[in-house]
Amino acid sequence: MGCEKDCCNAFLRCLFDYGTPVTLVISNKKVGFIFRLIQLLIITYVAVYVCWMKRFYQDTDSVISSVSTKVKGNILTNSSAEGAHVWDVAEYVIPPQGENSFFVMTNMIVTPGQTQGSCPEALSEFTRCESNIDCKIGLNEVRGNGVQTGRCGKYSETIKTCEVFSWCPIENDNIIPKTAVLGDAEDFTVLIKNNIHYPKFNFKKRNILDYINTSYLKTCTFNRKTDPDCPIFRLGDIVAEAGEVFSVMAVKGGVIGIFIDWSCNLDFPERFCVPKYSFSRLDNKHIENNVAPGYNFRFAKYFKTSENVETRTLIKAYGIRFEVIVLGEAGKFSIVPTIVNLGATLALLSLAGAVCDWFMLTFMKDSDYYAKHKFIHLNDRSDSGVPLVSKSQLFSFIFNIYLCKLYIFIVIELCWDTFIWDSIM
Amino acid sequence: MGCEKDCCNAFLRCLFDYGTPVTLVISNKKVGFIFRLIQLLIITYVAVYVCWMKRFYQDTDSVISSVSTKVKGNILTNSSAEGAHVWDVAEYVIPPQGENSFFVMTNMIVTPGQTQGSCPEALSEFTRCESNIDCKIGLNEVRGNGVQTGRCGKYSETIKTCEVFSWCPIENDNIIPKTAVLGDAEDFTVLIKNNIHYPKFNFKKRNILDYINTSYLKTCTFNRKTDPDCPIFRLGDIVAEAGEVFSVMAVKGGVIGIFIDWSCNLDFPERFCVPKYSFSRLDNKHIENNVAPGYNFRFAKYFKTSENVETRTLIKAYGIRFEVIVLGEAGKFSIVPTIVNLGATLALLSLAGAVCDWFMLTFMKDSDYYAKHKFIHLNDRSDSGVPLVSKSQLFSFIFNIYLCKLYIFIVIELCWDTFIWDSIM
Amino acid sequence: MGCEKDCCNAFLRCLFDYGTPVTLVISNKKVGFIFRLIQLLIITYVAVYVCWMKRFYQDTDSVISSVSTKVKGNILTNSSAEGAHVWDVAEYVIPPQGENSFFVMTNMIVTPGQTQGSCPEALSEFTRCESNIDCKIGLNEVRGNGVQTGRCGKYSETIKTCEVFSWCPIENDNIIPKTAVLGDAEDFTVLIKNNIHYPKFNFKKRNILDYINTSYLKTCTFNRKTDPDCPIFRLGDIVAEAGEVFSVMAVKGGVIGIFIDWSCNLDFPERFCVPKYSFSRLDNKHIENNVAPGYNFRFAKYFKTSENVETRTLIKAYGIRFEVIVLGEAGKFSIVPTIVNLGATLALLSLAGAVCDWFMLTFMKDSDYYAKHKFIHLNDRSDSGVPLVSKSQLFSFIFNIYLCKLYIFIVIELCWDTFIWDSIM
Repeated sequence: MGCEKDCCNAFLRCLFDYGTPVTLVISNKKVGFIFRLIQLLIITYVAVYVCWMKRFYQDTDSVISSVSTKVKGNILTNSSAEGAHVWDVAEYVIPPQGENSFFVMTNMIVTPGQTQGSCPEALSEFTRCESNIDCKIGLNEVRGNGVQTGRCGKYSETIKTCEVFSWCPIENDNIIPKTAVLGDAEDFTVLIKNNIHYPKFNFKKRNILDYINTSYLKTCTFNRKTDPDCPIFRLGDIVAEAGEVFSVMAVKGGVIGIFIDWSCNLDFPERFCVPKYSFSRLDNKHIENNVAPGYNFRFAKYFKTSENVETRTLIKAYGIRFEVIVLGEAGKFSIVPTIVNLGATLALLSLAGAVCDWFMLTFMKDSDYYAKHKFIHLNDRSDSGVPLVSKSQLFSFIFNIYLCKLYIFIVIELCWDTFIWDSIM
Repeated sequence: MGCEKDCCNAFLRCLFDYGTPVTLVISNKKVGFIFRLIQLLIITYVAVYVCWMKRFYQDTDSVISSVSTKVKGNILTNSSAEGAHVWDVAEYVIPPQGENSFFVMTNMIVTPGQTQGSCPEALSEFTRCESNIDCKIGLNEVRGNGVQTGRCGKYSETIKTCEVFSWCPIENDNIIPKTAVLGDAEDFTVLIKNNIHYPKFNFKKRNILDYINTSYLKTCTFNRKTDPDCPIFRLGDIVAEAGEVFSVMAVKGGVIGIFIDWSCNLDFPERFCVPKYSFSRLDNKHIENNVAPGYNFRFAKYFKTSENVETRTLIKAYGIRFEVIVLGEAGKFSIVPTIVNLGATLALLSLAGAVCDWFMLTFMKDSDYYAKHKFIHLNDRSDSGVPLVSKSQLFSFIFNIYLCKLYIFIVIELCWDTFIWDSIM
Repeated sequence: MGCEKDCCNAFLRCLFDYGTPVTLVISNKKVGFIFRLIQLLIITYVAVYVCWMKRFYQDTDSVISSVSTKVKGNILTNSSAEGAHVWDVAEYVIPPQGENSFFVMTNMIVTPGQTQGSCPEALSEFTRCESNIDCKIGLNEVRGNGVQTGRCGKYSETIKTCEVFSWCPIENDNIIPKTAVLGDAEDFTVLIKNNIHYPKFNFKKRNILDYINTSYLKTCTFNRKTDPDCPIFRLGDIVAEAGEVFSVMAVKGGVIGIFIDWSCNLDFPERFCVPKYSFSRLDNKHIENNVAPGYNFRFAKYFKTSENVETRTLIKAYGIRFEVIVLGEAGKFSIVPTIVNLGATLALLSLAGAVCDWFMLTFMKDSDYYAKHKFIHLNDRSDSGVPLVSKSQLFSFIFNIYLCKLYIFIVIELCWDTFIWDSIM
């Protein structure tokens, strides 16, 4: 009887002994109803929220992407100063190739024929002068355009400013063309080629979908309703979808995000994994505390005169930088997250029992009767195996509840302290 | 006896009361075997898959990386039109410095001496004309090269096309050199310097490993077998490892990914954390519905004639863009994921008991006998504490199983509906 | 009595039957103390570490960011060879706009007036020659500057090197200016505009905080103590905070990371989510096995002489590349991770019971007595429902412990083998 007789035999017996808790079944509608209700809530939550909405049974992977862009379009400008000029891609896309972004120049301030020399500084409250005394030799203002020579020069017929050694003449960027010089860039198109890769699932795809043929690509333009899969976008449409007016934005420039969302549920066939395009402005528009609003930068084209003197055309380019941001997280069924999340939610089911026990032993009028059968009280060293039932078990149970509350309180306290601490530091 | 007499004493007693479930041990080989088998399966799964393969006990961090590249090599070309020309890094790497990528020009269409003016448009089905009537003043085709002047001009001896105001002469990009002009770029080398950082573990390393000395770096070239740690790569080798033929790819260009994988198990010594290089083509090669295959862009060099007229050399550059993509996730032992995952898998062990109970109470011929001892039935308000045993407990148990099945069914239904919904929208 | 009589009634009864385990309460201070201690440890761990430090109750999202930068400042250089020259942004920031980085040229080797032609190669141990025999027609060294013509030319009065066909004269980059030509770039300032977005929480913010007004932005410079929110940085300060000396770093160049940390707890008000700036050098400084230390690249400005011959000024630019790296993970309360983590930690509480059972049944002198009451032994097919108590249950329990130990051992073994395997491969 048991493991003592034959050790090998005993071992085998023990190996296959199965222990299961003795269960007290209570046929009480109140407790039973609460028990089933809590069970139902937990299972519904798991089914609807965790499983359906959050797809806990899936492993996820982040997208690796490669983007290349190609802008097309020409603009004819006809200024009185410079005459007719046609602008093509090589001129208004700077730099000629970007990694995940491209910049289209829409407005500019051109300062041609700059050479190293001395000339009056651009007009500002700090640079005005009456005579040479107001200027300081060698002063190099971070926000200025050169190094002061100490002379006071004629900025215009009536105004004098300190002379600087610099690339002269100084650019005058106080007056930006109010109608963007290249405002017609609105009609340009850009072809975005995007190849993506989910390495964990060995899934590759590109934004030119399989059903799209070459003749369609030659004529189509992206339209959310009629051509949602065409990878050729009109710049004006992009800006309009981002909630901006192209002609306004073209004046001072800005940054537009082109989001390509490749979030896919790879448990479904590959053809359901298609990119979703969206657009939004990334920089701030017209908030009061804005510094250097819009988007611009300066670059120069360098020339040499026949006397071998370096001269340059300085261009302050305003324009729209389009950033192609590829987002995406793919999910596919995987056993590890399934087990981990299933285990965690199973553990929650045990909460149902704890809550019912508490309800049963606290609020039911027969709680003494239930406690008497649920708890078998063993006193230390006393041999009387007779179950002892008293308020003590109930007390112990309630004690546990309060211990729990205490901990929750401590946790909230700690979190609050962190908050205060973080905000002071 | 208990907590009533002395409250303080009672509290202490209750504090140290320990409750443990009363367990029914069943010495039945069938049930015992099933119990042990399920236990074994779960523990084996945890040990082998979750612990060994997925390293659930590790916290992970994503890599922060800095890349700089330096291409070396020269090519002598000798065309009848332009004479001998040596191309060096400053000419064929455009732009001179990239962030995580570099572009090597391998083929080009050069259109020198362009100035603003009028000339016949490039030949296409839309631009051919017979007389001025076929051309439209001011027409600005997005895919054209300029703004039509309304005149029909001589494209060649026999063909006429509409004249456009543009940078003239118009580039003729219909004929790409069939052998890449700079096809010898295959022999160029690139030094890739890559510093990585795992901030969470304060781990820094670079791809020039500690044992590599300067003299080795001056002569080595990456070779998967003989020099797997040399950070200098021959472009031809990179393209070959990506499964492409350099001379073919050089004609129209393309995008190659250079993947540096820094996935490391930081529980092991630092010297085991070494980069793994791999290469693959990122753009699509020769699929039928491809638009603008390969990789190219246009840029121009601007000059001024002695009469101060701006003239430019337009270059349509075909070439290979190499994108250095640094991947990596480092894992290191951490107590939080260990606890979370351990807890979740422990919860799964309780499944073993549930399955055995179900088996025992459903399929065993002594199920009544087992149920009688496992369940103690308390009837509502009846004072008879006598355990009642009947089929009802068994029924209740099976009822639970079906409830569970029902939920699984609902979940699958919901998921399927999402799928249908997603695919319609 | 039970479910047999009326099926519908029976079903309802079963539906609301509630089963709770029969519990043996042991009033033993030793066991009770151990039980409470383990419970306390687990709850404290959950409260302090998992909840407070790791915020397990939060869902997290990664940052999407847009960066634009604007450098300001001028430098006057006065070399005997080239005379006075003022350098402005358009000259020293290359390329004029970067995506998340900008490069400031601090030192340079200028080689003006290069044309295609033949001239002696730069001096090195491989290029020295005595006569034409030492040179090889058509030799194109990857690390050389051109294609050898087979002639031995005069490098200087006393030294001869092989002549190459190349852009001539050849750049001499052996002598780098020891004091950086544009070392005063230290005083330049850079405005960094950074807009971030946490898509999951629909949270947008920028690094120009709401309380900052335009007049402050016109004068402020970032200072960790006095102006921690000013987005305008002095380059010298950035380099100093990264632990480097600007004047030293300026000579050979380098890469500096500007980290903007947007880690936020979005359970707190929006105003507490502010960027934290930090700086560190990303490339390696002066380690022995360093190749091409610092950071440099070559670019050229192309000119045409009056005879229409292309000539260029080659510039080897040394400088500091500043990479703006935006980090950030935002957390916000979410029900899914809360449930998953809570479930997992609840499951751990069951460990307390397991440990106490093991202690009680192994080390207590009354273990037999406890085992007798905890275990009800059912023998196969024997109708005697009398609880049987023996050493066997205890043995079974201890057997489980050893099974557990065995698995832990196997897991460690497997992990170790992986390690060995990985390190050999």
